[in-house]
Amino acid sequence: MTAECIPIQPVASEARKASFPLDQWYMAGFSTDLTDKPVGRTFLNQRVVMFRTADGQVAALEDRCCHRSLPLSCGTVEAQGVRCGYHGMLYAPTGQCLEIPGQERIPAKARVRAYHMAEKNHILWIWMPREAGGAPSREAPAYPWHDDPRYTFGTGAYHYKAPWQLIHDNLLDLSHLGYVHLQTIGGDARLHMNAGMKVTQEGDTVKVVRQMPGSRPPPTYKAAWPFGETCDRWQEIEFDLSHLRIWTGAIEPGTDSIDDPQRGGFHMRGLHGITPETEETCHYFWSMSSTRHPDKPDNSAAVIQQTAFTFDEDRVVIEEQYRNMKAFGGKPEWIDIHVDAGGNRARRVVQRLMAETA
Amino acid sequence: MTAECIPIQPVASEARKASFPLDQWYMAGFSTDLTDKPVGRTFLNQRVVMFRTADGQVAALEDRCCHRSLPLSCGTVEAQGVRCGYHGMLYAPTGQCLEIPGQERIPAKARVRAYHMAEKNHILWIWMPREAGGAPSREAPAYPWHDDPRYTFGTGAYHYKAPWQLIHDNLLDLSHLGYVHLQTIGGDARLHMNAGMKVTQEGDTVKVVRQMPGSRPPPTYKAAWPFGETCDRWQEIEFDLSHLRIWTGAIEPGTDSIDDPQRGGFHMRGLHGITPETEETCHYFWSMSSTRHPDKPDNSAAVIQQTAFTFDEDRVVIEEQYRNMKAFGGKPEWIDIHVDAGGNRARRVVQRLMAETA
Amino acid sequence: MTAECIPIQPVASEARKASFPLDQWYMAGFSTDLTDKPVGRTFLNQRVVMFRTADGQVAALEDRCCHRSLPLSCGTVEAQGVRCGYHGMLYAPTGQCLEIPGQERIPAKARVRAYHMAEKNHILWIWMPREAGGAPSREAPAYPWHDDPRYTFGTGAYHYKAPWQLIHDNLLDLSHLGYVHLQTIGGDARLHMNAGMKVTQEGDTVKVVRQMPGSRPPPTYKAAWPFGETCDRWQEIEFDLSHLRIWTGAIEPGTDSIDDPQRGGFHMRGLHGITPETEETCHYFWSMSSTRHPDKPDNSAAVIQQTAFTFDEDRVVIEEQYRNMKAFGGKPEWIDIHVDAGGNRARRVVQRLMAETA
Repeated sequence: MTAECIPIQPVASEARKASFPLDQWYMAGFSTDLTDKPVGRTFLNQRVVMFRTADGQVAALEDRCCHRSLPLSCGTVEAQGVRCGYHGMLYAPTGQCLEIPGQERIPAKARVRAYHMAEKNHILWIWMPREAGGAPSREAPAYPWHDDPRYTFGTGAYHYKAPWQLIHDNLLDLSHLGYVHLQTIGGDARLHMNAGMKVTQEGDTVKVVRQMPGSRPPPTYKAAWPFGETCDRWQEIEFDLSHLRIWTGAIEPGTDSIDDPQRGGFHMRGLHGITPETEETCHYFWSMSSTRHPDKPDNSAAVIQQTAFTFDEDRVVIEEQYRNMKAFGGKPEWIDIHVDAGGNRARRVVQRLMAETA
Repeated sequence: MTAECIPIQPVASEARKASFPLDQWYMAGFSTDLTDKPVGRTFLNQRVVMFRTADGQVAALEDRCCHRSLPLSCGTVEAQGVRCGYHGMLYAPTGQCLEIPGQERIPAKARVRAYHMAEKNHILWIWMPREAGGAPSREAPAYPWHDDPRYTFGTGAYHYKAPWQLIHDNLLDLSHLGYVHLQTIGGDARLHMNAGMKVTQEGDTVKVVRQMPGSRPPPTYKAAWPFGETCDRWQEIEFDLSHLRIWTGAIEPGTDSIDDPQRGGFHMRGLHGITPETEETCHYFWSMSSTRHPDKPDNSAAVIQQTAFTFDEDRVVIEEQYRNMKAFGGKPEWIDIHVDAGGNRARRVVQRLMAETA
Repeated sequence: MTAECIPIQPVASEARKASFPLDQWYMAGFSTDLTDKPVGRTFLNQRVVMFRTADGQVAALEDRCCHRSLPLSCGTVEAQGVRCGYHGMLYAPTGQCLEIPGQERIPAKARVRAYHMAEKNHILWIWMPREAGGAPSREAPAYPWHDDPRYTFGTGAYHYKAPWQLIHDNLLDLSHLGYVHLQTIGGDARLHMNAGMKVTQEGDTVKVVRQMPGSRPPPTYKAAWPFGETCDRWQEIEFDLSHLRIWTGAIEPGTDSIDDPQRGGFHMRGLHGITPETEETCHYFWSMSSTRHPDKPDNSAAVIQQTAFTFDEDRVVIEEQYRNMKAFGGKPEWIDIHVDAGGNRARRVVQRLMAETA
């Protein structure tokens, strides 16, 4: 702001210092999100505008024109960058202002913060650095199943009015299927609560494996695959900070072993990219990749539809849970039960990574 | 929370210490509210879930599973208690957890707070104790008119965005009928503002009596009873902390005395259970019991409909009043006028009972 | 409040000290706003009720009955003043209570604050004094174009979720027409950004003049006037604290000089009365007076419609701008560009007038 300019009346700040692990890749969406319009999203309390330039590269800037603060996501995408919709200032993917219409000189300060992005396996990743502008210290995560011809995938996205870790808890403890998801992937509550569960950890990856041999296939499985009365069912959950990979499925009893990664049967591979928006809200980007049975070549649409229905149910539960936590003062005296082992390990990973970049 | 479990990010508390008289019965609703689903309501800043067990008893618990804080009102009612809708923990009416699916041991700490309830004359009462779990020191109030064959009653409930005492003020000063309720029970404003008014008090019960002999029957009265040009009309209001009883009605001139409790004519007995939800909001549970004239045996539906319409008008006024009080800083320099005697006495009763249990 | 009356539970105040220039006329609306109902509006954080008495005078009072705080704007207008809709207290334009139904004595304290108003050229003005009740030290502004037979005018009003000065900025810098208003009065962005601009100041009046000779007439101009391929176009903006006068228009090339105030052609005279409601919101009362071509005698409705459409576009931009300023903490490091000269001068005028009456 130049000396001539008189300050705006200050207003209670909505922006806060991030309380999240930094120097991390977080999921920013899917490749298909970036078409001819800029997309504004908030990650870790930081407002970001994303766009794709004429050469196909994805870019992310601070979502604020440095002239009069209009979100750049209200502007237009051009070949070289994004143009503000108020007075037409044009910004390059580096954040540098390239043009001020009607003015020759472009001040050095006419620039906004830029973020590093990666696009990989149809996924958009954003590097959230500890220091503004910091470059990634490692590659963005790979997720090969989106490009594997054995699978067909569909995607979805939620905005959650709940902190991201409540979704980690939910996904690392699939025992809730018996009570929450009766109509799709749940079913007999006792089965889910009593299934054997093995929790392991390797580095910052937490893995939870549950197996339900000889169980009745739930509605979604029956719709997608010609199962008989029973199936041997598995749930393999891998938590990394930025996303969870959940490989579930079932085989006909007496065929392959459910311990064998090469097993056949019906497979569902869920990607769950959970990115904090604020301390109290988050983005939840998901995809579901599933296999097709020769007799049911078109099962994918039904799988995606039922997955979305299932995740809708989770959202209701988790947002109610958080509303209630706040109503009770945010300091719940939680009692842990047997199913919490995975979620609690993930919480320790988050806590440690946050401490490292605080 | 076990040592292993990492705390949730603390959040600005919505729960606050109650600023209301405690060790009191408050109205929690009507018997018909409790069917096969749990009902969640907040009384005096405390979130409560209410349900009816297989043996017909009513019960109330803290509305929060001690495992992961989902409201128990999102769960299901079973014969023995209420089951959480997330991981299936079952709670008895005592608050004790009876079952953790998939786990043998039930920790002693696996319990939630319980409240004492009473069900009487089709009304649900909840005891709001000074000390958590405290037992009632007296019987819940009686309201025999719901069980009196001379009367037919209907019920309703409001959620008010205004503190409870503004409704006390409103009901203890029926002079507002002349300005607010022209279409139902009001009418000539001068009549209502000039009616004689007697305010008395016995213990913590405040009584306001107003009489309007020889007045024109208002629309609701004419619809319900074959009055002629004039009637002798009374309004007898009794305030107790948890509810007001308002006995209004009229007789044909020259029949009984309006001072005689055995008088005939048209009678309306209103129950007004006003229970704080928070400092700024409240529940308003009402019933209206009325007599029938042999020539108009079906007048009850019309009476209930017009009563609801009348109370809708009050709600608009009271919520606007409170919005304006807040806009003006919550410290109005109120000028008292002649009609405020009853309301002011009630405020002193509330103030004193609050001080006794602070 | 009498000694007998027990205070209402205090509540977080919504009322705040005004942070605006005082001892100033502000626009309160248009004459047509005051019919048979009282009108409640908040100016500079002060809730006001406006009404017109039987003799046609306009009056403004604090919008709060001194008895129980109901907004007087919920009441009724009578010949002598405004009557509260709760218990019928009647207030004169002086703020004095004239009648308490059912009570002989009217306490001296039964009065509310009054404001001075003026009605002039179909505009309502309110004097916002430094000291409560302070009288105007000068005449309300004149705006003769509403009463000039050469012009036809229409009016509109917005409630903005943005501070008033962001609208000053917007109106003093019409270069945004090229990016925001393509469909009505904008068009070629380069033209608007490169137009010569002259900024002058006389006392507290800031004037910005821009001329675009030989330019293509934009859609609204073509609809209202039979222009050919090009026109000589002007924009003359005058800022005063309470309102802006924007005189725009165009002449056929080769007729009059665009510097000559007596020039012919198509004229649009916009009145923009911008009155703070709170620090974060404002009222925006506008009128548009335009000339008619003999061949297009009915162009006025189209001009008003397109003006409203144009202002709708501005509102979206300005409210997004403010939302973003708050998200970024309210302390934007704004970069000034060439078009900001007028807006920055206006900000200094506001700042100085505010300091004088703080």
